[in-house]
Amino acid sequence: MATIREIAKASGFSIATVSRVLSGSENVTEETRKRILKVIKELDYRRSQSIKGSSFRGIGVLVPDLKADYYGMIAEGIEEVLLRNHFEMFLSTYRHSLEKERDALEEFFARKVDGVIVCTTHQDEECLEKFIEAGIPVVAVDRENSELKMDIVTIDNYESSLKIAKYLYEMGHRKVLHVEGLMEIYSAMERKQALIDFAQKKEDFEVIFIPAGFDVKDGYSAIKKYLDKYGKNFTAIFFVNDWVALGGIKALKEAGFNYPEDVSLVGFDDSPLAKYLHPSLTTMKQPIHEMGLNAAKLLIEKGSITK
Amino acid sequence: MATIREIAKASGFSIATVSRVLSGSENVTEETRKRILKVIKELDYRRSQSIKGSSFRGIGVLVPDLKADYYGMIAEGIEEVLLRNHFEMFLSTYRHSLEKERDALEEFFARKVDGVIVCTTHQDEECLEKFIEAGIPVVAVDRENSELKMDIVTIDNYESSLKIAKYLYEMGHRKVLHVEGLMEIYSAMERKQALIDFAQKKEDFEVIFIPAGFDVKDGYSAIKKYLDKYGKNFTAIFFVNDWVALGGIKALKEAGFNYPEDVSLVGFDDSPLAKYLHPSLTTMKQPIHEMGLNAAKLLIEKGSITK
Repeated sequence: MATIREIAKASGFSIATVSRVLSGSENVTEETRKRILKVIKELDYRRSQSIKGSSFRGIGVLVPDLKADYYGMIAEGIEEVLLRNHFEMFLSTYRHSLEKERDALEEFFARKVDGVIVCTTHQDEECLEKFIEAGIPVVAVDRENSELKMDIVTIDNYESSLKIAKYLYEMGHRKVLHVEGLMEIYSAMERKQALIDFAQKKEDFEVIFIPAGFDVKDGYSAIKKYLDKYGKNFTAIFFVNDWVALGGIKALKEAGFNYPEDVSLVGFDDSPLAKYLHPSLTTMKQPIHEMGLNAAKLLIEKGSITK
Repeated sequence: MATIREIAKASGFSIATVSRVLSGSENVTEETRKRILKVIKELDYRRSQSIKGSSFRGIGVLVPDLKADYYGMIAEGIEEVLLRNHFEMFLSTYRHSLEKERDALEEFFARKVDGVIVCTTHQDEECLEKFIEAGIPVVAVDRENSELKMDIVTIDNYESSLKIAKYLYEMGHRKVLHVEGLMEIYSAMERKQALIDFAQKKEDFEVIFIPAGFDVKDGYSAIKKYLDKYGKNFTAIFFVNDWVALGGIKALKEAGFNYPEDVSLVGFDDSPLAKYLHPSLTTMKQPIHEMGLNAAKLLIEKGSITK
């Protein structure tokens, strides 16, 4: 972002003259004013627009990856609101690595972003504290409540998962597999906890937990290994997301089982995948795009970032 | 990015003292030097590291969207190389809108990025020329050859598509549907052209072109409408990408047709989707991640950006 010095250099006028134009002083000719304003526009000089003397109006957004549609959709929601409010989004991925995550946050801090949105990250509270102490607003998406002074946008993963458990129970299922996500991710943990709690209340309901991950290959290997070892001793599977379900479906079909005839399946996210599989996959709708919209709105409104 | 002035302010020392420390002058006490260096580190001050007096070492990356895995995978490839070379990636999406695309490029320019990578964009040559004239390197991904002095990373879409046509012909297919992508996208146009040329050479080979798009819903409605109107008067379908194929498969299955028994299908991209569908989808592998890696490498190497 240009400084008065840079504007002076680029326009060929003195710092004092540039300063007079910026302060709206009458003490400059019309032609000089026009020429400097043109240079300022070109250099995209935005004087005192940002909070805390930030050097540009940008929001750092940190997501684990961009492979599945999930974080891409959140990022698109965030960007939609930011653009409407004349902020630029700077998106970085941390590839599920705490080290890369910290590096990215350090970069954002060094670049003086006007705000930060973090999606499901690890033990980064120390880094985030730095922003909050410097008065830079932080919003987290999909994250456990924290001691830190930041807003959190999330869906009620616990409640959604409980709904799925009840639905399966009411359909008559008594032995259900849960192909779970990485436990370091808050939403996956909450979904698992709801199932544990439900199964504890119902004596005639059993959930078998299979540690997996969020990728399609995790679903495939989880179900393949289970079937190889125990056979089909269940009547329903609840997958942590729709992609994991796609992998699981392949393993089931290879073993000769079809859905919904032989086994009931439930996914999570309501991705386009679920709708366009045939038969369609029952899934729990998540307002993914909306989470992104809301995160950006919160950042702008509550963070009192100058529009 | 911090200026000498900001460092002076933050450290409490004079501009002259900061300047002496930066220039490596002996004329400062060890304690002063240490204190200023600490502040500089905190402010992430990077003097004269960037080309053309850029204010930060960042690369602007512009993609149409982040919904499917395609551009997310390219972006991850780009980021991998940039991070290794201590550049930050600033990713923006232009949502297939020329106006938004130009805005994003203007933003990148105003923010003085050290380089730009654009993925399959429209009539933005004028904007890109501005970067090139300013000595800021530009690399394009998936784009037609241009008069502009920029490197282009692409796969041979024409050759890949020709291979698919030959494969289908050798399999005995004589009437093939092609569910095509948006013709404003270079790679989709090339794929179509190869089929046109092949069909012109072979008298006994017919391709029926169905305008669609790149989304799963486009594939579904294209095949649904076609079957409703003409019935299954073909033996194979070549889809512009794997997601479009997923939509087409649903329409086929709803009409009672299975693959590969009733109809041969070929996708494009070799996305995880193709592998995990059951039966797997025949598809043309594209080195998507590698395109991203190469784009970033080209930018850094040929753009002679200081490492």
